[in-house]
Amino acid sequence: MTLRLDRDRLIATMEEQATYGATEDGGLHRLALTEADREIRDWFRDQLRAADLSVRIDEFGNIFGRREGSDPDAAPVLLGSHLDSQPNGGIYDGVLGVIAALEFIRTLDDKNIETTRPIEIVNWTNEEGSRFQPAMQGSGVWTGAHDIETERTKTDDNGVAFGEALDNIGYRGDVPAEPGTEYDAYLELHIEQGPKLIEADVDVGVVTGIVGFTWGAVTFHGEADHSGPTPMHHRSDALVAAADLITSIRRIPGSLGEQTVGTAGYINAEPNSINVIPGEVTVTWGFRDPNDEVVEQAYQRVLTEAKHAAEREGVNYETEERMRAPAISFPDRPVNAVQRAVNQCNYQSLELVSGAGHDATHLTSVCDTAMVFAVSENGKSHSPDEFTSWDDCYKAATVLANAALELANDVTE
Amino acid sequence: MTLRLDRDRLIATMEEQATYGATEDGGLHRLALTEADREIRDWFRDQLRAADLSVRIDEFGNIFGRREGSDPDAAPVLLGSHLDSQPNGGIYDGVLGVIAALEFIRTLDDKNIETTRPIEIVNWTNEEGSRFQPAMQGSGVWTGAHDIETERTKTDDNGVAFGEALDNIGYRGDVPAEPGTEYDAYLELHIEQGPKLIEADVDVGVVTGIVGFTWGAVTFHGEADHSGPTPMHHRSDALVAAADLITSIRRIPGSLGEQTVGTAGYINAEPNSINVIPGEVTVTWGFRDPNDEVVEQAYQRVLTEAKHAAEREGVNYETEERMRAPAISFPDRPVNAVQRAVNQCNYQSLELVSGAGHDATHLTSVCDTAMVFAVSENGKSHSPDEFTSWDDCYKAATVLANAALELANDVTE
Repeated sequence: MTLRLDRDRLIATMEEQATYGATEDGGLHRLALTEADREIRDWFRDQLRAADLSVRIDEFGNIFGRREGSDPDAAPVLLGSHLDSQPNGGIYDGVLGVIAALEFIRTLDDKNIETTRPIEIVNWTNEEGSRFQPAMQGSGVWTGAHDIETERTKTDDNGVAFGEALDNIGYRGDVPAEPGTEYDAYLELHIEQGPKLIEADVDVGVVTGIVGFTWGAVTFHGEADHSGPTPMHHRSDALVAAADLITSIRRIPGSLGEQTVGTAGYINAEPNSINVIPGEVTVTWGFRDPNDEVVEQAYQRVLTEAKHAAEREGVNYETEERMRAPAISFPDRPVNAVQRAVNQCNYQSLELVSGAGHDATHLTSVCDTAMVFAVSENGKSHSPDEFTSWDDCYKAATVLANAALELANDVTE
Repeated sequence: MTLRLDRDRLIATMEEQATYGATEDGGLHRLALTEADREIRDWFRDQLRAADLSVRIDEFGNIFGRREGSDPDAAPVLLGSHLDSQPNGGIYDGVLGVIAALEFIRTLDDKNIETTRPIEIVNWTNEEGSRFQPAMQGSGVWTGAHDIETERTKTDDNGVAFGEALDNIGYRGDVPAEPGTEYDAYLELHIEQGPKLIEADVDVGVVTGIVGFTWGAVTFHGEADHSGPTPMHHRSDALVAAADLITSIRRIPGSLGEQTVGTAGYINAEPNSINVIPGEVTVTWGFRDPNDEVVEQAYQRVLTEAKHAAEREGVNYETEERMRAPAISFPDRPVNAVQRAVNQCNYQSLELVSGAGHDATHLTSVCDTAMVFAVSENGKSHSPDEFTSWDDCYKAATVLANAALELANDVTE
């Protein structure tokens, strides 16, 4: 039997959360560990308590709510995402996953449904990574990918330490930031942040994994001469080499894979004056693909293209790979549970690999993990233009709930 | 008979001036109307007085020293350049022209040589345009190209007005900033700031004019999406369009003229984050050529290339021409005087068109103007690496002196 959520309550709760850190253009500005984050955390903690969940806050600020199962010793099913936003972000990103999990619990209570396994909801601290880096910081600490003491010393642009900011908003909890027990599964609902679902005209996305990526930078060193009297054949123009590389970064994905993407997102030129030939320019690369070998090929290609660009312009260069993350493939068990929930609801779905990282990335090291994607109407995110219809929010939440319900009652091990 | 300058005194005076605003790496940091500028002005005024010149300072801070001729009513010959420098500039740029003029006067005094025409030396205020824009401000006001009251209100990066800064260093003089009388000729000695003379292996440059130029900017408007989940075919990447245009700007001169140069010196990308597709990018163009028609062709070409680059990437764009200056051709009379001085000294010379603007640009509207270029050893300027050997300083100064002497005695009108 399919579990039906309360659509009106889901919408009302989404609208209520969107009032904390609301911007004039209908978006959210709710950076991690700011006053707006404290307010949404207070509100969220109250909602957990109102739903009779036992609330615990760990020493990194991750907030958990637990609903006991009929077998309190069974490994729990964990559901959640994040309540923080990008600067001037949208009202769905992350939050929808937390509110959907809350609506699931409320519905179980409404219908007096008991599950075998305990169910926990989580709000991970600082998923966005806008104010403090890295992104997915709370889940990274909790799963042991990052050291908590190191992360507490990270500072924002104003020199405020993460630990200081967390203490200031009163969300340094007393529970260790670690699983502490075995978990059965983690399910995360998130908006797609891309156009694949809307283009395929489906109801919901079944996420089978997360792409791998390489991030890095190339710095070209030329000669900063006066732009007037220096003949063209005497120039070593660092910006021309960088431009050459940027157009290569645009082309590389087209010769690698259907799902490969490549971006030059950042550029800095020195001295950056209309009247001076640029002497030093740094440009970044980012390549993503579901296949680690393709990511490696993209990395090798950008190194080759940087070399060619430097040679063509007669400049020196250096490269620095800043980050490499392997592709993640979710295990069959939770993915199949999501797919069965889709079928049960008679929804149309698309299997896809997430092009962005999520807290689920870290959770894969702790337990069976999968994700549900809600349709992004225009493929946009991190912007007030981000939009998912209430219908699509409801469908994705319903899939999450039914998949979670199956997992929470499945104790055949 | 060729006039011989005092080589040792010329060098000593160049070395002495270089102590005002000296940087640790042997360069100069002597921005207009700063304390270092006040000090070099005090020193220069003392040198003029010591040479028995009558000193006058105009209300825009331009400093003049006058040596009377045997016919005090004859139109004077004006010699000079500027004592201010770029941030971390070199010790020759501009200054050599002022010191060479001073050495000429001193030599005339040593040898008791009287000229028919009066001779005046000038230090123009703020040639560099680093602290206050535009460049060549003092000569621009003096020749009537700019309005003095408007220029006095221009502010530096700290909001200090030009007029306030000029008053603070005590160099707002009481003479109107205008010629006031007819001038016979203006000669300016400057380092080349390019490699043409050193490549031609000559002693000195005979400048026949100044290139024309167009300066402007193109802004591309794309879509700032998340760099992960946005497929390549969904992107409108403003930085890719800008990169496309930059490589075009590098190529355009090669299809226009032997002396055409083109530069993209400035770029700004938004939001400029490794993880976001650039949504808005501005890049500047600068094209120069001795022929105005070629400058116009370059302008039309950059507009066409901006259109193509925008179309290829599917972004919008807008262009703005910020400045257009016609090419200047110096009249034969002063150019021939410079060439005769070269021949008289048995020097090898190259005729060339200045690729950079100079105070001489403005002086052409007032009187017959020409320039002498000293060899730049590595073609560099606006840098502590700027270098002209004392031999080359002496040769260029000697040519300036002999050309000026001829003009100052030529009253056949």
